[in-house]
Amino acid sequence: MKTGALAIDAMGGDRGPSEVVDGIALAYEANQVPERLIVVGREEILTPLLQAKGLTGKDFLSVHHAEEVIGMDEKPTDTLRRKRNSSMLQGIELVKENRAQAILSCGNTGSLMAGGTVRLRPLDGIERPALATVMPGTRRNGKWCLLDAGANPDSKPEQLVHNAILGSQYMNAAHNVSQPKVGLLSIGTEEGKGGQRIKETHNLLQSIGTIINYHGLIEGFQVYNDVVDVVVCDGFVGNILLKGSESLFHAILNILKEEIEETPMRKAGALLAKGAFKGMKSRLNPEEFGAAPLLGLKGHVLKAHGSSNCFSFASAIKIAKELLQYDVIDGISKDLEKSNVILQRIKESNATPAT
Amino acid sequence: MKTGALAIDAMGGDRGPSEVVDGIALAYEANQVPERLIVVGREEILTPLLQAKGLTGKDFLSVHHAEEVIGMDEKPTDTLRRKRNSSMLQGIELVKENRAQAILSCGNTGSLMAGGTVRLRPLDGIERPALATVMPGTRRNGKWCLLDAGANPDSKPEQLVHNAILGSQYMNAAHNVSQPKVGLLSIGTEEGKGGQRIKETHNLLQSIGTIINYHGLIEGFQVYNDVVDVVVCDGFVGNILLKGSESLFHAILNILKEEIEETPMRKAGALLAKGAFKGMKSRLNPEEFGAAPLLGLKGHVLKAHGSSNCFSFASAIKIAKELLQYDVIDGISKDLEKSNVILQRIKESNATPAT
Repeated sequence: MKTGALAIDAMGGDRGPSEVVDGIALAYEANQVPERLIVVGREEILTPLLQAKGLTGKDFLSVHHAEEVIGMDEKPTDTLRRKRNSSMLQGIELVKENRAQAILSCGNTGSLMAGGTVRLRPLDGIERPALATVMPGTRRNGKWCLLDAGANPDSKPEQLVHNAILGSQYMNAAHNVSQPKVGLLSIGTEEGKGGQRIKETHNLLQSIGTIINYHGLIEGFQVYNDVVDVVVCDGFVGNILLKGSESLFHAILNILKEEIEETPMRKAGALLAKGAFKGMKSRLNPEEFGAAPLLGLKGHVLKAHGSSNCFSFASAIKIAKELLQYDVIDGISKDLEKSNVILQRIKESNATPAT
Repeated sequence: MKTGALAIDAMGGDRGPSEVVDGIALAYEANQVPERLIVVGREEILTPLLQAKGLTGKDFLSVHHAEEVIGMDEKPTDTLRRKRNSSMLQGIELVKENRAQAILSCGNTGSLMAGGTVRLRPLDGIERPALATVMPGTRRNGKWCLLDAGANPDSKPEQLVHNAILGSQYMNAAHNVSQPKVGLLSIGTEEGKGGQRIKETHNLLQSIGTIINYHGLIEGFQVYNDVVDVVVCDGFVGNILLKGSESLFHAILNILKEEIEETPMRKAGALLAKGAFKGMKSRLNPEEFGAAPLLGLKGHVLKAHGSSNCFSFASAIKIAKELLQYDVIDGISKDLEKSNVILQRIKESNATPAT
C-alpha cells in the first residue's frame, strides 16, 4: 500500500535529536515506517546518530540539512519570519513542495501550527485547522479523540461542525474506529444550557445527518467514560481540558507516591502491586498515543509531545504511516463538501424571511 | 461572634433527608454550626429524624415545613414557577425575608442557581453570580478556588474581573488564605494567545491593582500545581474543567482497581498499601471541601454535592458558618465598588477618541 514520504523534524524536542533517532530505529525495527523518511536537521549531528543505529545507506531514509532550530519558548510569529532555515519550517516546505506528504515534529507547538497553516493552507471549504488529541478511556484500550485541543480558541458553529468531520475521519483512518460516535461538549444537556453557540452547533450537527454519527451533547463528567469516540469543542476549552487532565494526572501520581512513602508497610505493598501502577500508567499516559495531527490542512502536520521519548516517537511515526495510508485528506474533503452544501442551505433558509 | 441563621434544604440530595440530618448532628457535635439552623422540608419526615439524633427541643434548631421537593432532573425554569412550596425555594425565601442569612442545599444545581439569582438578586455593581468550587492541590492541604464553575457560561471581561474579586474574598473569608494569588486561565501566556476576551480581561486585572493579588495568566497544566489560589475563567470552561477532572479521577480509580485485581500478588500488595490509597482519595476528593457557594448575590447560597454523605454535609455547614462569620458579602461589595470605579474610568478613556 502506498504511503509516501514523512518529513521528521529531528531537532525540536526537549530530549534532543538522539531520542528522535532512537524512535526512528524502533519504528523501523517494528516495520512501522512509511515508504520514505526524510530526517530534517543539522546533518553533522544527525548522520553520526543514524550511523550508530545502522540507519545510513538505506533507500527509505535520507537526511535533509537544515541549519537552524526553533526553541521551545520562541514566539511563533517571530519564528515564521526569522527561522525559515529551521528544521521545522524546512520540513513543512518539503510537504508544501510535495517532496514529503507529512511532517512530524516534537518542537514548538505554536510554530508548527502557525507554519503548517500559513504554508500548507486549509482545505477548500474550511477556515481553520483543528488539533486532534487521542485520549484514554476507562475501559481497556478505550480511546477518544478531543478536538480542537488548541488550534482555534474561538470556534464558530460551522467550524465546530467541521471539527466533528475532521475527528470522525481521523478516528476512522488512523485508529480503526468505524462510524465514530461524536459528542458535542457542553455544560448540561438541557435546552440552551451551554449558550447560543452550542445550541446552534447542536442543531447543525443534527442536520448534517449521516455524514457523521452524531450522539448529541455530552458533559465533562462523561469524557473519560467511553460514551463517545470524538469530543468536539473549541480550542480554548479543549486545551484547558487536555492540560488540566495532565495536571491532575501528575498530581495524583505525586500524591500517591508521597502517601506510599509514609510507612514501610505501604512501601512494601506498593512494591508487590508495582505491576498495577505500571499498568495504570501505561493505560492512561497520553504519550502512548504518539502524535496529535493538525487536521484540515492540505498536507499532514503531526505534533508529538515536546517531552516524547523514543517509544512515543516511534508510536507517532506509526500514526503518521496510518494517516498517509488511508488518505484521510481525501475523505475529509469529500465530507466537507457534502456538509457545506447542507450548511449553506440552512444559512439561506434562515436568511429567508418567513412568508 | 455573630453568625446568624442558616436555612438547610433537607430534602434535595441523592441520599435523602436522613443523611442531611446525620450531617447536622456531626456538625453540632463538632461545635461547627452557626447560631441558628432552620431545617426546611416535610415536618413529618424531619422531626422524627431530628428526634432520633437528639436534636429536637434545642433553641438553635427549628423546622420550617415545606410540602414539595424539587427532583434532581427537573428543569430549573419549570421548578421556579411550579415548585414555590419546595424545600429549596422556601429556604431561599427565608434568606430573602432575612429570617435566615444563608441557604445550603444538595439539591438540583440549576434550580438553586436560578432561584438564588432571581429571588436574592445580584449585589449592586455586579451582573451575574459565579459558582466557586474549592479544588485540591498537589501539596498536602493544598487547595485552590475555581470560579466560575458553571453559573455564567459566557462571561464578559468585566464579569471575569468580578469573579477574581469574588474568589479572592471567598478564599480569604472561608478558607483562611490571606491575599490569595489570582490566575486568569488561558491557553498560553504569549500575547494574544487566548483570544481577545482573555487579553482584555488580563489588562483589566492588571489595572485594578491592589484590590486583588493578580499573578497573571496561567495554563491548564498549572491548575493542580499550587501556583495560584484562585483560578478565574468563564462558567463554560470552569464546568468542563471541574467535571472533566471528576471524570478522570474516577477513571483512574477504576483502572487502578482493575489492574490490582489482575493477580493475587497485586491484591496482597494493595492491601498492605491500603492506607496510601485512602490518603490519596481523601486528599483529592472534592467532596471533602463540602460546599460551593454561589457568590455575588445579596444573600448566601451554598451548593453541596448531590451525592454528599453526612461528613461532606457537615463540612458544608462549617463552610457556611465561616462565610456568615466573616461577612464576605460586605468585603465583596466594597471591592466591587472600588474596582468598578477603575473599570468605568478605563471604559471612558477607551471611548475617548485620541487627540
